[in-house]
Amino acid sequence: MEVIKPYFHKVQYYETDAMEVVHHSDYIRWFEEARMDFLEQAHFPYQEIEAQGILVPVLEASCKYRQAVRFGEIIQIEAMITKFTGVKFMVSYQVYDEKHEVLHATGNTAHCFLNQDFAPISIKRHMPELYEFLMESCKKGAAQ
Amino acid sequence: MEVIKPYFHKVQYYETDAMEVVHHSDYIRWFEEARMDFLEQAHFPYQEIEAQGILVPVLEASCKYRQAVRFGEIIQIEAMITKFTGVKFMVSYQVYDEKHEVLHATGNTAHCFLNQDFAPISIKRHMPELYEFLMESCKKGAAQ
Amino acid sequence: MEVIKPYFHKVQYYETDAMEVVHHSDYIRWFEEARMDFLEQAHFPYQEIEAQGILVPVLEASCKYRQAVRFGEIIQIEAMITKFTGVKFMVSYQVYDEKHEVLHATGNTAHCFLNQDFAPISIKRHMPELYEFLMESCKKGAAQ
Amino acid sequence: MEVIKPYFHKVQYYETDAMEVVHHSDYIRWFEEARMDFLEQAHFPYQEIEAQGILVPVLEASCKYRQAVRFGEIIQIEAMITKFTGVKFMVSYQVYDEKHEVLHATGNTAHCFLNQDFAPISIKRHMPELYEFLMESCKKGAAQ
Repeated sequence: MEVIKPYFHKVQYYETDAMEVVHHSDYIRWFEEARMDFLEQAHFPYQEIEAQGILVPVLEASCKYRQAVRFGEIIQIEAMITKFTGVKFMVSYQVYDEKHEVLHATGNTAHCFLNQDFAPISIKRHMPELYEFLMESCKKGAAQ
Repeated sequence: MEVIKPYFHKVQYYETDAMEVVHHSDYIRWFEEARMDFLEQAHFPYQEIEAQGILVPVLEASCKYRQAVRFGEIIQIEAMITKFTGVKFMVSYQVYDEKHEVLHATGNTAHCFLNQDFAPISIKRHMPELYEFLMESCKKGAAQ
Repeated sequence: MEVIKPYFHKVQYYETDAMEVVHHSDYIRWFEEARMDFLEQAHFPYQEIEAQGILVPVLEASCKYRQAVRFGEIIQIEAMITKFTGVKFMVSYQVYDEKHEVLHATGNTAHCFLNQDFAPISIKRHMPELYEFLMESCKKGAAQ
Repeated sequence: MEVIKPYFHKVQYYETDAMEVVHHSDYIRWFEEARMDFLEQAHFPYQEIEAQGILVPVLEASCKYRQAVRFGEIIQIEAMITKFTGVKFMVSYQVYDEKHEVLHATGNTAHCFLNQDFAPISIKRHMPELYEFLMESCKKGAAQ
């Protein structure tokens, strides 16, 4: 299984708030950016999952903020599959500075698989390769 | 034709940026809030327009910023139909403070009517009451 | 201690995403709206806290999504202080529909008090009334 | 004067709305991304301008939407200084697809220079190199 590279993001001015640092809600959006990039690197771009009529909604999201991020800084996010029950999976995130010296934030999101009517589907049956990938990733994530 | 009341919005912290005032992109979102409220007051809630398979996309949007708005302030927006060709319509916006003493910004948006495949439709045929309303509003807007 | 009323929010079109429901990051922003409203109802508007040179950053934020919210719906959020150590406090949120029949989401945020240099300050010393309010609210929140 | 390269942006899921295309307000944010990138390529990163106590607010913003952009697509934005009076400057934007075959949108923003108290300053006196750059860029932009 190939190595997934961290996701890099340059902080935009519109992401700052009146405290002159990035607003806390934007980290949740960055997790989405990193998650989509992770899936794309793993050859499961989210567009293609949706094109098969499968939605992957967010069931839970959380973030712990350790050190503020400012406009113009570049951050890198490491995403990792930490759990997969066959029905739900969890992604963990670590937000570092560009040089990987400062841990700015950590977080998690939990997800499941639905059809267009928002009813649960079996990903093992509908996308067995994605099922296998999540199972393998999960073992790797857990091993770290 | 009944009078449409201004739309009130309380400025949120997440709408501010590092200049400690509201980010300029949020005014474009406020115009949408005011436009949707205008349509709802006119008994054409946008949900019902979309429920009939009609989309009303934004063709153009513009804003002139006169005086910055800060967190916690309440602004009021007056929306007005200023043009309707039968195919396209234009909405104008004036953003005042709560007491209607300071004009913070002005703007315009232009719109048309599409079906779900993004092809133009005749609103006169599909929603004759909305067509009539826009024609009447337009005359009123132009008369001011 | 007076009763704090729920915070009402009307869902905007710009809060939806391509799944045709509200994007998960917007709930984190709604928590901020509800928190600011809670503080204002308690006679501690956040503007006045900041005017004293005190920042109240978010240390943690989390949300569990139970049922999607759609454009045009009105939601109500009940915020409650559930913990206060004298240094940190936690706010819990319950997102209901307008009629208080459907629980759409629940969440928490944790906060502390900093000065303009992002150094911790004693809220007991700088704003004793806010300290007292949080202590009292916390007891009430815990009792429910 | 060196050539400024277009700015590339990958469309995020949180930028889409219920029409399943990018929300119109995000283009205004993309213009900011492209403008900041333009300034950085020109060796005037906005952080350094602000570090000198100079703010560059948006006076006007406008966008014409020609063809919708979808999640996962990569767009490129060409920014150009089209006017500079010595006091105000205007930036024009062209939003193309990745292959530069489809023009998705065009727009403009107007700006001035303020100090921290939001009072106008002479950029010629405070940052003569930036003044020169804008004058040169403007001639180039006008010549195209």
